[in-house]
Amino acid sequence: MFKLIIHGGAGAIKSPDEYKPSLEKIVTEGQKLLQQGKSATEVVTHCVSLLEDDPLFNAGRGSVLTADERVECDASIMNGENLQAGAVAGVSGVKNPVKLALTVMEKSEFVFLIGKGAEEFAKLHNLEFMPDEYFITESRLKQLKEAREAGKVVLDHSDLKSQKNDEKKLGTVGAVVMDSQGNLASATSTGGIVNKRFGRVGDSSIIGAGTYANNSLAAVSCTGYGEQFIRATMARVAAEFTKELSAKEAAEKAIEFLQKSVNGLGGLIMIDRFGNIAHAYNTPGLLYAQADEKSVKIF
Amino acid sequence: MFKLIIHGGAGAIKSPDEYKPSLEKIVTEGQKLLQQGKSATEVVTHCVSLLEDDPLFNAGRGSVLTADERVECDASIMNGENLQAGAVAGVSGVKNPVKLALTVMEKSEFVFLIGKGAEEFAKLHNLEFMPDEYFITESRLKQLKEAREAGKVVLDHSDLKSQKNDEKKLGTVGAVVMDSQGNLASATSTGGIVNKRFGRVGDSSIIGAGTYANNSLAAVSCTGYGEQFIRATMARVAAEFTKELSAKEAAEKAIEFLQKSVNGLGGLIMIDRFGNIAHAYNTPGLLYAQADEKSVKIF
Repeated sequence: MFKLIIHGGAGAIKSPDEYKPSLEKIVTEGQKLLQQGKSATEVVTHCVSLLEDDPLFNAGRGSVLTADERVECDASIMNGENLQAGAVAGVSGVKNPVKLALTVMEKSEFVFLIGKGAEEFAKLHNLEFMPDEYFITESRLKQLKEAREAGKVVLDHSDLKSQKNDEKKLGTVGAVVMDSQGNLASATSTGGIVNKRFGRVGDSSIIGAGTYANNSLAAVSCTGYGEQFIRATMARVAAEFTKELSAKEAAEKAIEFLQKSVNGLGGLIMIDRFGNIAHAYNTPGLLYAQADEKSVKIF
Repeated sequence: MFKLIIHGGAGAIKSPDEYKPSLEKIVTEGQKLLQQGKSATEVVTHCVSLLEDDPLFNAGRGSVLTADERVECDASIMNGENLQAGAVAGVSGVKNPVKLALTVMEKSEFVFLIGKGAEEFAKLHNLEFMPDEYFITESRLKQLKEAREAGKVVLDHSDLKSQKNDEKKLGTVGAVVMDSQGNLASATSTGGIVNKRFGRVGDSSIIGAGTYANNSLAAVSCTGYGEQFIRATMARVAAEFTKELSAKEAAEKAIEFLQKSVNGLGGLIMIDRFGNIAHAYNTPGLLYAQADEKSVKIF
């Protein structure tokens, strides 16, 4: 038995069908790896790296742009078997930030590396780098221009304050797996928010906020307003709720807590220690897909 | 009624008496501010900024040095009344990183800023900057030289793997307050670990790891091996335990969890929603001091 769920962000999604082929391809690849007996950490890394490679999603290639037209990525991974974790923030040029987070987890004595230092570590470990042109897409340049004209920081996934704005602005990506050994893992990756400044970091690189995995509780990956998810210690709270609730109830209670405690908006995917898959969100939509040994489902 | 507890790091402390005058002065200043009716967030900021100013402690002035002989600071603050939070990591030149964390919390739409971007934000808000000479002390240069000769990254507080090494190497600083309105707040600040590279960030800037405050649970500030505290989502876990345990039991259970789950070492200070002060640690020592409206105690 194994379980896999991936997400491509939450928000007001104009054309959800546009993302389905990508989600299906990626979740099917993850399913194959799990059938081959790959570990939870290997599969979350692979699925998130495919989401990063796909310019449709706000992570890796196709990330939203900072105020100075750069791509700055955040990512993290956690292994539920031993609570090992790796995270990076404010990283540019690294093709797959999630692979860098994995390398931090597996090859360093550290958990969290940021900025130029993290890039230096990536070079030392021969991670693949790509030029700016690879990361920056036409649609993200247009989105930044609009954000500048509106004089604001635009949220990563959609402009939730004005629901009139129905452009496709997707957020974070993530994956959560229980492998055939019963081990849990989760990974999350993002380009952050449009027009961001000041080295802003959201929840995607924060263990306990955007990402958490613990074989004795659950594995969780979040997407939404990063600031609110940090303040709510969201992924940890959702996992904690599985102590006494079903995965579905825990996911819903976590989103309820997010809304009540910090007026937060977003979604999460999770798999509990029994292998139950769940998701919850209070945004208009959440892009996700899931698989087990028998089936693949795209939503 | 009000309560205040501060810490100056955990580890193998050769001459604890050396730190007592500083701790006494700082906790007494905090007590005065609380008597004047200052808020919990004001008082934790003030106490931590005094600890940062004191070259004895590994935060602000007197921080440990990175591999390239620089000071890179991390700090965070959380307001238990509304779960607002501010955090900075990898910041150089800012005299009081905790004041920058407070400014992020109060004056920005963000929670977490890193590196050059955070420094730019600090300049924009007229925070005080100091030249390198201000931060770098002779004893930290000597410590770095020794670490280089030993070819290792030395822990911030003490070399816990070889207890023979009884040098004074203290870690993080922090403060936790319940003010006369019954509001909780906590703040944490650090220079990190000696000889650090790659933009390494520990738990001190991570909400839920090094710092957490929630009026309905507790306020917590941690000190120890940052990587282990991140993996254990330590501050959040300690606060969670106060749901069903006394502050003292919760603090001890949290350190027990740290040790069992990630083989972690360190300490924490906390005040629960009832105003009970507690601390716990599994290192040889913890430097702390506490006060209420009647008394000041130095340990």
